[in-house]
Amino acid sequence: MDNLGVLFLSELVGTAMLVLLGCGVVANVALAKTKGFNGGFLMVTFGWGFAVFAGVIVAYASGAHINPAVTLGLVANGATEFGNAAVGLTVPVEALSVLAYIGAQLIGAIIGAVIVWLAYKQHFDAEPEPAPKLGTFSTGPGIRNYAWNLVTEIIGTFVLVFVVIGFGRQGDASGLASLGALPVALLVVGIGVSLGGPTGYAINPARDLGPRIAHAILPIKGKGSSDWSYSWVPVVGPIIGGLLAGWVALWLLPVIT
Amino acid sequence: MDNLGVLFLSELVGTAMLVLLGCGVVANVALAKTKGFNGGFLMVTFGWGFAVFAGVIVAYASGAHINPAVTLGLVANGATEFGNAAVGLTVPVEALSVLAYIGAQLIGAIIGAVIVWLAYKQHFDAEPEPAPKLGTFSTGPGIRNYAWNLVTEIIGTFVLVFVVIGFGRQGDASGLASLGALPVALLVVGIGVSLGGPTGYAINPARDLGPRIAHAILPIKGKGSSDWSYSWVPVVGPIIGGLLAGWVALWLLPVIT
Amino acid sequence: MDNLGVLFLSELVGTAMLVLLGCGVVANVALAKTKGFNGGFLMVTFGWGFAVFAGVIVAYASGAHINPAVTLGLVANGATEFGNAAVGLTVPVEALSVLAYIGAQLIGAIIGAVIVWLAYKQHFDAEPEPAPKLGTFSTGPGIRNYAWNLVTEIIGTFVLVFVVIGFGRQGDASGLASLGALPVALLVVGIGVSLGGPTGYAINPARDLGPRIAHAILPIKGKGSSDWSYSWVPVVGPIIGGLLAGWVALWLLPVIT
Amino acid sequence: MDNLGVLFLSELVGTAMLVLLGCGVVANVALAKTKGFNGGFLMVTFGWGFAVFAGVIVAYASGAHINPAVTLGLVANGATEFGNAAVGLTVPVEALSVLAYIGAQLIGAIIGAVIVWLAYKQHFDAEPEPAPKLGTFSTGPGIRNYAWNLVTEIIGTFVLVFVVIGFGRQGDASGLASLGALPVALLVVGIGVSLGGPTGYAINPARDLGPRIAHAILPIKGKGSSDWSYSWVPVVGPIIGGLLAGWVALWLLPVIT
Repeated sequence: MDNLGVLFLSELVGTAMLVLLGCGVVANVALAKTKGFNGGFLMVTFGWGFAVFAGVIVAYASGAHINPAVTLGLVANGATEFGNAAVGLTVPVEALSVLAYIGAQLIGAIIGAVIVWLAYKQHFDAEPEPAPKLGTFSTGPGIRNYAWNLVTEIIGTFVLVFVVIGFGRQGDASGLASLGALPVALLVVGIGVSLGGPTGYAINPARDLGPRIAHAILPIKGKGSSDWSYSWVPVVGPIIGGLLAGWVALWLLPVIT
Repeated sequence: MDNLGVLFLSELVGTAMLVLLGCGVVANVALAKTKGFNGGFLMVTFGWGFAVFAGVIVAYASGAHINPAVTLGLVANGATEFGNAAVGLTVPVEALSVLAYIGAQLIGAIIGAVIVWLAYKQHFDAEPEPAPKLGTFSTGPGIRNYAWNLVTEIIGTFVLVFVVIGFGRQGDASGLASLGALPVALLVVGIGVSLGGPTGYAINPARDLGPRIAHAILPIKGKGSSDWSYSWVPVVGPIIGGLLAGWVALWLLPVIT
Repeated sequence: MDNLGVLFLSELVGTAMLVLLGCGVVANVALAKTKGFNGGFLMVTFGWGFAVFAGVIVAYASGAHINPAVTLGLVANGATEFGNAAVGLTVPVEALSVLAYIGAQLIGAIIGAVIVWLAYKQHFDAEPEPAPKLGTFSTGPGIRNYAWNLVTEIIGTFVLVFVVIGFGRQGDASGLASLGALPVALLVVGIGVSLGGPTGYAINPARDLGPRIAHAILPIKGKGSSDWSYSWVPVVGPIIGGLLAGWVALWLLPVIT
Repeated sequence: MDNLGVLFLSELVGTAMLVLLGCGVVANVALAKTKGFNGGFLMVTFGWGFAVFAGVIVAYASGAHINPAVTLGLVANGATEFGNAAVGLTVPVEALSVLAYIGAQLIGAIIGAVIVWLAYKQHFDAEPEPAPKLGTFSTGPGIRNYAWNLVTEIIGTFVLVFVVIGFGRQGDASGLASLGALPVALLVVGIGVSLGGPTGYAINPARDLGPRIAHAILPIKGKGSSDWSYSWVPVVGPIIGGLLAGWVALWLLPVIT
């Protein structure tokens, strides 16, 4: 397999892992008769944080973007190659590689969501309400207002991509880069508890759109609408936030060598 | 003592520590008059995560499998020796060493469960219901359906073994391997909050069967059935999940050297 | 841009990030119709901890004080230069640089608070009570008594600055210094859960005064008083605590080289 | 100051920090009108964990025992010197140094408890019940039975000292030793959630006796009995558990060099 094929598979596997554990914690908190029913928002945010942790671990070969907003943010920040330079697995940044990364992330997210449905199959069947079923797959706002929901998603994703770029700017004096997956996991917990209140923090177009597609396709018992009217917000917001972070980081996060 | 004897003891001690702290947190949340009564599912998952942390620390000599699903998953992944290569304490992978690891894990789990009973002796005596007593020792499903319960245990254990193999694939660019016990502890918290909802995430045949044997043997006041009809699910599911993860990792987690 | 300009910008960006995530978690817990409504004090403390984590990450160029009490505590401890010595970005400690640091922190805190208001705009509008609105921006005491509230803020800030100085005293035997942002994040969680009970742990004059200024200026729907009569306590207390910690550390934390 | 004086001061400061943050979180959860009132047992255990974290950081010079059970456990394990060998600050293990360590720990614990009282002064005054006041200072059992309470404290302290000794046995392949304070902090969270249910996990004679002395001496408004009849359990239990762990570790935790 050529490098781009390896990186495609790596992003696919990493994003599937992210969505499996991430949507899994929502299923555990929201669906009937689970052990973690009504476990609280802090548990949801830790679940998503450790989902990022596991996803980043298994996507080591591709640099573990597992999020189109990160991929695009790095492009805006001037990245010239994707992948894992330490082991010689890289591809140049060009239209094809960007599309391969984003395509892999979206397919991986759909697969992850299908596996969540299998893991919680009986609890989807036992749950009478349609709302927690969609909520397990995709985000929805506390107060619906497309413009302000978009603002919240832009801010949340800006923080994610801006700080992720900051991890790489610490120079030799910090061991953070070598910690790999842990700092970004904790960052995602932080964004969740702090900026997840209004929209449930998609901050990742693949994480929201992939499971929504799965929700629309899967024969989920008693499911309701997939709420396509809202679906563009957690796609467009994170893309804007990621691009913005990549550009702003050029000015506010000086490179130290 | 020869190498295999040292490794046997190491797995036994590590799994006893795992089960002591792991079943301990369930006792704290489930039994009458404890300080942590009704402490919530997030507390249970952190308890099991730090139980893994402590168990891995004290089983450093044997590579800290402390779980037959990990042992078998590594075999499926093509491991040729078990133990701690860094210090020259290894044995070749063959029927005898695999059986020694699994046997030690099961015996350790029984011992750990007995000590939990001693630590919480009065609270077992004061608890009127039999269900939380068995729940302290072994897992049970939210909705009983052997086939789907098996699916959930397979998925949960797959994630555990797949990501653990991923820890060793990070190359020099990551300090994760050198962090040892911490990443696997956080991973187990993540699996718990995300995939523990339907079956209580045994994801380890020794962790479930050992304490169930202890529950059957110990003179626990007012205990009920040990639920042997369900007991094969958290044994067979994790074995399938672990083997599957070992095989799939050969294809999806490329070795980077 | 000269060094002082770079460091000014770095402190501004770091403190804005700190306040954005920190005040964000309070908004999530306190305002109507959020996902994390009534999420509990533990969630608030983790939110502030990870807010410190993200703020320290992006303020790597200036040494990441992001708190006037830390800046003044380091002066009292005898620091002769500020900034990141590892990359040659330093300025001598003198009136101008101290004022630049503190000024940047205050401006950054105001900006962070404004962004929180934008992220939670609809929830501020939907919240009928004025108290949770001010509570999102600034701290207030459980029992109002200026003298004792001051004592609590002095003790909390003393712990923060004293232990932060301790991080730099571990010698080569510890990897803590190289972990950078994580230890101080966990320390702030610890101070929050342990010493945050009486006053809500400002322990940072900029974190409290900056958002209070934002609260006074912003056109927040249905806002009440900005409680200026209390506003000096979370400024003066942390300054005293930080200076005290810097001096006491000279005697109680021996330098090991 | 000679070495023993430096180490004495270091243990005193570290244990004061431990008790200040540790008893602080109980005050926050138990006393009237605090921000963290009724915050739950998980918050208490994180509070004590990060209290250990901060205490270990500031006691770097003396090796950060901050617990007589650790000091005695290391003696039983055959330690020949105390202190920080990496920086040449050591004393031989003999009656005088053991007594100096334990004495410093007890005095530090009393000082830490006094500062908690000052930080929460108004909340002690506003709390009508005497039970949460003593509970802020010292532990008490869920079900009073000296023999079984002793068993629980022995088991909990055994885990603490046994795993702490395990941290030092990882050889070069693990970065855990270099992480310093973090692993022991997480371990203490784990012991708390898992084995803290019956007795509130003193697992440290100084942590329990020091604050009890402070409770007896301080002019706390409306305080009740200091419960001296129970006071020997959290002293004797941890001493037995620590000694036992030191001895058993000689056999079960092989030294790898």
